[in-house]
Amino acid sequence: MAHLVIVGGSDAGISAALRARELDPTVDVTVIVADAFPNYSICGLPFYLSGEVPDWHQLAHRTASEIEEQGITLRLNHTVLTLDAERHQVSVRDPDGALRTLGFDRVVVATGAAPQPSTLPGHDLPGVFVLHTMVDSFRVHDFCSTRHPEHAVVVGGGYIGLEMADALTTRGLHVTLLQRGPSVLHTVEPPLAHLLEGELRRHGVEVLTSTPLAAITPRGPRLRVWGAADVWRDTDLVLLATGVRPSTALAQAAGVALGPHGAIQVNRRMETSLPDVYAAGDCVETWHRMLDAPTYLPLGTTAHKQGRVAGANAVGHDATFAGSLGTQVVKVFDLAIARTGLLEHEARAAGFTAATTETTVWDHKAYYPGATPLTIRVTGDMQTGRLLGAQLVGHWQAEVAKRVDVYATALFHGMGVEEVNDLDLSYTPPVSSPWDPVQMAAQAWMTAP
Amino acid sequence: MAHLVIVGGSDAGISAALRARELDPTVDVTVIVADAFPNYSICGLPFYLSGEVPDWHQLAHRTASEIEEQGITLRLNHTVLTLDAERHQVSVRDPDGALRTLGFDRVVVATGAAPQPSTLPGHDLPGVFVLHTMVDSFRVHDFCSTRHPEHAVVVGGGYIGLEMADALTTRGLHVTLLQRGPSVLHTVEPPLAHLLEGELRRHGVEVLTSTPLAAITPRGPRLRVWGAADVWRDTDLVLLATGVRPSTALAQAAGVALGPHGAIQVNRRMETSLPDVYAAGDCVETWHRMLDAPTYLPLGTTAHKQGRVAGANAVGHDATFAGSLGTQVVKVFDLAIARTGLLEHEARAAGFTAATTETTVWDHKAYYPGATPLTIRVTGDMQTGRLLGAQLVGHWQAEVAKRVDVYATALFHGMGVEEVNDLDLSYTPPVSSPWDPVQMAAQAWMTAP
Repeated sequence: MAHLVIVGGSDAGISAALRARELDPTVDVTVIVADAFPNYSICGLPFYLSGEVPDWHQLAHRTASEIEEQGITLRLNHTVLTLDAERHQVSVRDPDGALRTLGFDRVVVATGAAPQPSTLPGHDLPGVFVLHTMVDSFRVHDFCSTRHPEHAVVVGGGYIGLEMADALTTRGLHVTLLQRGPSVLHTVEPPLAHLLEGELRRHGVEVLTSTPLAAITPRGPRLRVWGAADVWRDTDLVLLATGVRPSTALAQAAGVALGPHGAIQVNRRMETSLPDVYAAGDCVETWHRMLDAPTYLPLGTTAHKQGRVAGANAVGHDATFAGSLGTQVVKVFDLAIARTGLLEHEARAAGFTAATTETTVWDHKAYYPGATPLTIRVTGDMQTGRLLGAQLVGHWQAEVAKRVDVYATALFHGMGVEEVNDLDLSYTPPVSSPWDPVQMAAQAWMTAP
Repeated sequence: MAHLVIVGGSDAGISAALRARELDPTVDVTVIVADAFPNYSICGLPFYLSGEVPDWHQLAHRTASEIEEQGITLRLNHTVLTLDAERHQVSVRDPDGALRTLGFDRVVVATGAAPQPSTLPGHDLPGVFVLHTMVDSFRVHDFCSTRHPEHAVVVGGGYIGLEMADALTTRGLHVTLLQRGPSVLHTVEPPLAHLLEGELRRHGVEVLTSTPLAAITPRGPRLRVWGAADVWRDTDLVLLATGVRPSTALAQAAGVALGPHGAIQVNRRMETSLPDVYAAGDCVETWHRMLDAPTYLPLGTTAHKQGRVAGANAVGHDATFAGSLGTQVVKVFDLAIARTGLLEHEARAAGFTAATTETTVWDHKAYYPGATPLTIRVTGDMQTGRLLGAQLVGHWQAEVAKRVDVYATALFHGMGVEEVNDLDLSYTPPVSSPWDPVQMAAQAWMTAP
């Protein structure tokens, strides 16, 4: 391997580059980055916009020079126009608009995802934003700094929508959250989503569920956001956070096959359908460890892992992606909401005889100050006793994230619910109980009628 | 099974009683408790003495009436004098001093442990205390309330000693900690113990290591504590926290075999060497899941699990203790210190080709406010790549406890270090990084020379 080209400089692309150089210090690695911000923590954008991260430069996982110190060539503000797998070359437009051709022995496509394009009336009005890139966040930040909006409508109750409802409230705006479906955050089941809606309302966010966005119209200097059933709100700023779709145009044009979810089809070595073309991150289908099937689950954690696998294999090593369990956590005001594995309806659809129990217990011994409630839903298979998934809601400092990770680690090896109860977990009264809440929830599942 | 007698009303005894009644609501269960405090959280005593738990009643896991509501008969302030396994009876002294005999079909011995008896000159002087029972804590509490000590010497740098150094400092005393060995807390390796010693000193505790206690002498109304090399400190209160030993007298006299560590020998069904006699908790040898051998590891978590197994088997079910990994956590001032699995020297003694790496990383993305350092030591087998153990030190609210539990869950199934890196763990910037610190430490181990 002499030349490795990586298209995309976010999590997957930079992980691939670093891993390739780590394993083969002789390989020539060029990362082509569409903007000027390689290896930025896109997950941090809401915290920049909330004011909690005062300087956006802090959001860099690594600086450009730190990346280059690893012997990686960065081509910033370069756009890859075409990929010719047979001739092993990409055509690239440089910042001055000039076109050139770059040869490769192997290429990693890490083009990421982009917000769902909107066709709704008014989606392109001034004051309407999406949030996916550093430049997107600069636009929102500038608008807030110069126009001093007092009210915002956030459209979409997924991770970005929830974090931005928190961020804009923290910044001092009044926020209305518009959610198409009957509850926010469909990655957890409705009882937990309702706890989250309560948290949003406690912090002054107006939550309108079952309210799909219909249109946005100008209203003097402001905007009027129309939902279903003629609900409307006048506002200064609209943030569309209605999900992303994989950026596959380059790969598709090159003849790379897509999978059932519309993302690039890869095997667990992150090889695409074309020789010497690897792909990783938000642009690819992600192998689900429990379903043993591809899904579309764009997450930073997964992108890092897939990039690492792609980078290793691209330089001749033999790495395999261990698969995703869909493990996720989000902080919204004082709560963390986490899940791993399958929700009950997902498990049933996959053929499991799934049953779920919900348990609410203190995060640590109630006698020690500061105990807060944890609500845990455990899903298991009634025929085999196998753990299928877990969802948790609790105070964000009540170790919710790492508690879901205990379940995630148990799922990784297909552990039974009863085995979770048998785990030797740590205990001291300020942080847990002799049976950790993770185990109390397992016991509740085991004894459910 | 008609009559089940349980000797001991702490974690193991009450767990056994509850589990027996849960599985067989017809069984007659009597728990004989030597004092008036069944099912108290002994781990909470330091927090009562620090003032953080104002009322000692709060320390009850369950009240006596909650236990009795489960159909369990409690005999408080009763002492079991003898156990006759052949005749299936115990002789009991009631609070009035009267002796009676109680028959059983099966018995669970859950007599716990007691502080190492001291033979040092002055160990029995007024103002010298141990801390193991509720009554012990009342003695210390009364002494502090009526005598207003200004200085205390804590002897022993294990869990109780460390927690009491914190508790007495929090209460307003000046504290000197005397540790026999070269560093405190021998359950973690010296580099982490040194971080802990720094935390103690930052909070005003004088830490004297390599200073075994030699004697305690009266000094007017005060005490003089003598260490090795003629070190001495004058003080008002001495707390001896030099470890516990299993309370086996009753079982030994009954002919129950002891194991190599001097605790009651049991199999994984918690059966002793005598038919119909079970044992559980701090009085028994604990099967170590990784060593596949008995150890002596008295911990509340283990006592609960063993009690549950004993209770189930005593009523004819078939339960097996899954084993201990030695998972532990302690909070000392602002730090939590945790470990699971084997230390390097323990792993080598067990025949593993053990190597350890130490990593210090932020607990979450540094750009999000409040990031604190986590120091993690990962021990793995160089020949097989198997994870052997992990130790962590960090801020107690930096999910140290549940991070060690991720390692504990990985150890439970004999996972490799590389598999830990492959785990699908949760991430959001306020609580983690795309590679969790647990995984960054695994990567450091994998890439160590």
